[in-house]
Amino acid sequence: MKKQIAKFTKPLYLESGRILEPYQIAYETYGKINKDASNVILICHALSGSAHAAGVYEGDRKAGWWDGLIGDGKVIDTEKYFVISTNVIGSCFGSTGPMDSDYPKQEPFRLRFPVLTIKDMIKAQKNLLSKLGIHHLHAIIGGSMGGMQALQFAVDYPNFADKIISLASTYATQPWAIGFNKVAIEAIRRDPRFKDGQYEKDTFKEDGLDGLAIGRIAGHISYLSPDSMNSKFGRNYVNNDGLFELFGRYEVERYMEYNTDNFSRIFDPLSYLYIVKAINTFNLSRGYDSLHEAILRIKAKVTLISFSSDYLFFPKEMKHIDDMMKRNGQNSDYYEIDSRYGHDAFLVELDKFSNIIKDKLNNKG
Amino acid sequence: MKKQIAKFTKPLYLESGRILEPYQIAYETYGKINKDASNVILICHALSGSAHAAGVYEGDRKAGWWDGLIGDGKVIDTEKYFVISTNVIGSCFGSTGPMDSDYPKQEPFRLRFPVLTIKDMIKAQKNLLSKLGIHHLHAIIGGSMGGMQALQFAVDYPNFADKIISLASTYATQPWAIGFNKVAIEAIRRDPRFKDGQYEKDTFKEDGLDGLAIGRIAGHISYLSPDSMNSKFGRNYVNNDGLFELFGRYEVERYMEYNTDNFSRIFDPLSYLYIVKAINTFNLSRGYDSLHEAILRIKAKVTLISFSSDYLFFPKEMKHIDDMMKRNGQNSDYYEIDSRYGHDAFLVELDKFSNIIKDKLNNKG
Repeated sequence: MKKQIAKFTKPLYLESGRILEPYQIAYETYGKINKDASNVILICHALSGSAHAAGVYEGDRKAGWWDGLIGDGKVIDTEKYFVISTNVIGSCFGSTGPMDSDYPKQEPFRLRFPVLTIKDMIKAQKNLLSKLGIHHLHAIIGGSMGGMQALQFAVDYPNFADKIISLASTYATQPWAIGFNKVAIEAIRRDPRFKDGQYEKDTFKEDGLDGLAIGRIAGHISYLSPDSMNSKFGRNYVNNDGLFELFGRYEVERYMEYNTDNFSRIFDPLSYLYIVKAINTFNLSRGYDSLHEAILRIKAKVTLISFSSDYLFFPKEMKHIDDMMKRNGQNSDYYEIDSRYGHDAFLVELDKFSNIIKDKLNNKG
Repeated sequence: MKKQIAKFTKPLYLESGRILEPYQIAYETYGKINKDASNVILICHALSGSAHAAGVYEGDRKAGWWDGLIGDGKVIDTEKYFVISTNVIGSCFGSTGPMDSDYPKQEPFRLRFPVLTIKDMIKAQKNLLSKLGIHHLHAIIGGSMGGMQALQFAVDYPNFADKIISLASTYATQPWAIGFNKVAIEAIRRDPRFKDGQYEKDTFKEDGLDGLAIGRIAGHISYLSPDSMNSKFGRNYVNNDGLFELFGRYEVERYMEYNTDNFSRIFDPLSYLYIVKAINTFNLSRGYDSLHEAILRIKAKVTLISFSSDYLFFPKEMKHIDDMMKRNGQNSDYYEIDSRYGHDAFLVELDKFSNIIKDKLNNKG
């Protein structure tokens, strides 16, 4: 695992018409590139992810977010493939985001940071790849927002990757998902400590922003499913004596508090707003005449993996892409994995889809 | 329509072991009671409802929340039936709630208000009926939390009502629904203007509590459905120029802001916390050996109406009650109404189930 930062001085022309300049991208690589650079796989992360997809940092207990898939001898085999994982621009884990300096000012961008889209994120990633001398990819793989990036790559740069594997994603974010994001947007905006974005860096390191924690609670509902909550928590109470206390908690409530309070100390609220905006505006058809025209551009072999209990991006949204591609005679495969883990299944039920990824990468699927 | 308040000086013994004394219940009646008091129907409201189920107040534009069903010549025909609709205790629309005086103190209860349960709510309603000389009901009808009350009535007082009609409800609140409520609980608690409940009455009349508005946004997600959001809003933008503005809004976002900001000026945040608590703790089996034992007590004819797109209380939860009753040889009917309006269908898709209610009330179903 190599952790690196790439700096860019040329302007990044954004979909909004604005410019990001300079900017930087944090990334990690695993494995070695082969002589003809034909073994490169790009991994794209989701809303709260980072470039740290695999391996364990010294002193850390937790491995990267897809460590179960990526590594020597694993499904995305780093003895065979050269894997690159980048942090999206707008995020707060090393790539340029709203709390970075608005060059040449010494002040952070804050709300002056330009709105970014999924198109912008992959454009930046492509610039990174160019800088590394990589002009073609064996595959692009990602789940959720990472799956959006993979699909957007397939549409915007049809000749760039041979294989696209998109999990738990969609062709355009639907109002249901925008609704969940709305909770976070309003909870952050209305939190007095957010100060319209005029907070100082590291303000929330010890005492996370409540608004972000609250938005994240809504997020966690959409990442789970009714069934997974039933089997994980049922109606169990943290403390049975607490049943008649107003703030006594069910186990599902404790889970949400625990995960979200931690998160609000780690993640920057402005980055959250900007990334959520990129998710909300995701629409493969934008910039093309129609969704059909956008999808018709795809030349890669596309694999779409959805999860039966995904309550954020429903299986039928992925199926819709597959149906269109099949009607067009394009190369696509669709899998609906039976899972009760909800949207989170792409992070936790690796066993259920890892063979699909393995076969696709090795041209066996 | 008659709007009244009934005051009680005898203690209400609560499920928690605590006592509410004195207390009052706001209620409305429609139609006339017949000689043998055999034509009485009780209507139970949902989380944000009030006793105002039908008719229009002078000067108001909006009718009661189930005005489409209740009235002269309507499905719940007030030329035939005497309809009573009460505001649940804990609420803020006339019945005793946390912002009322903690007698004999002159100060509101606030967080000293006792935790209430659905069992407590119906016990109070039964006391009101006794006071009015009503010892038997033709029917009890309610949706969502109102449907919980109807079912709890059937279990706790098996001989009290002939017919129970419960819509869009459940036998016990599942962690998925508790998760949505958690957003509201945390958003209210953590709002500095909530002041741990030490705010003064009418504080939020002009400038609603943000925490309540945010919690309500999460609520609105659960009241709608992915399909209803798609057809109502799609991916339409309020202002197309706003696509690349960070806080530019989709129509679904505007809908949520509009509805929730209004709500936060009308509804008391402490009442919201107490009612949400009652919903979370709802479990028909509590106090009995098992759900089976609880349901076995029911003597009424039970009608269970669910909605195919209800993403808050899923059809299978209602079906579960019907299955148990049928296995026991009890009198129950289950209907799953095909609707894309989600949980809200019980308030908006009246045409789709009004005939069922009519037939059941008139012994034709």
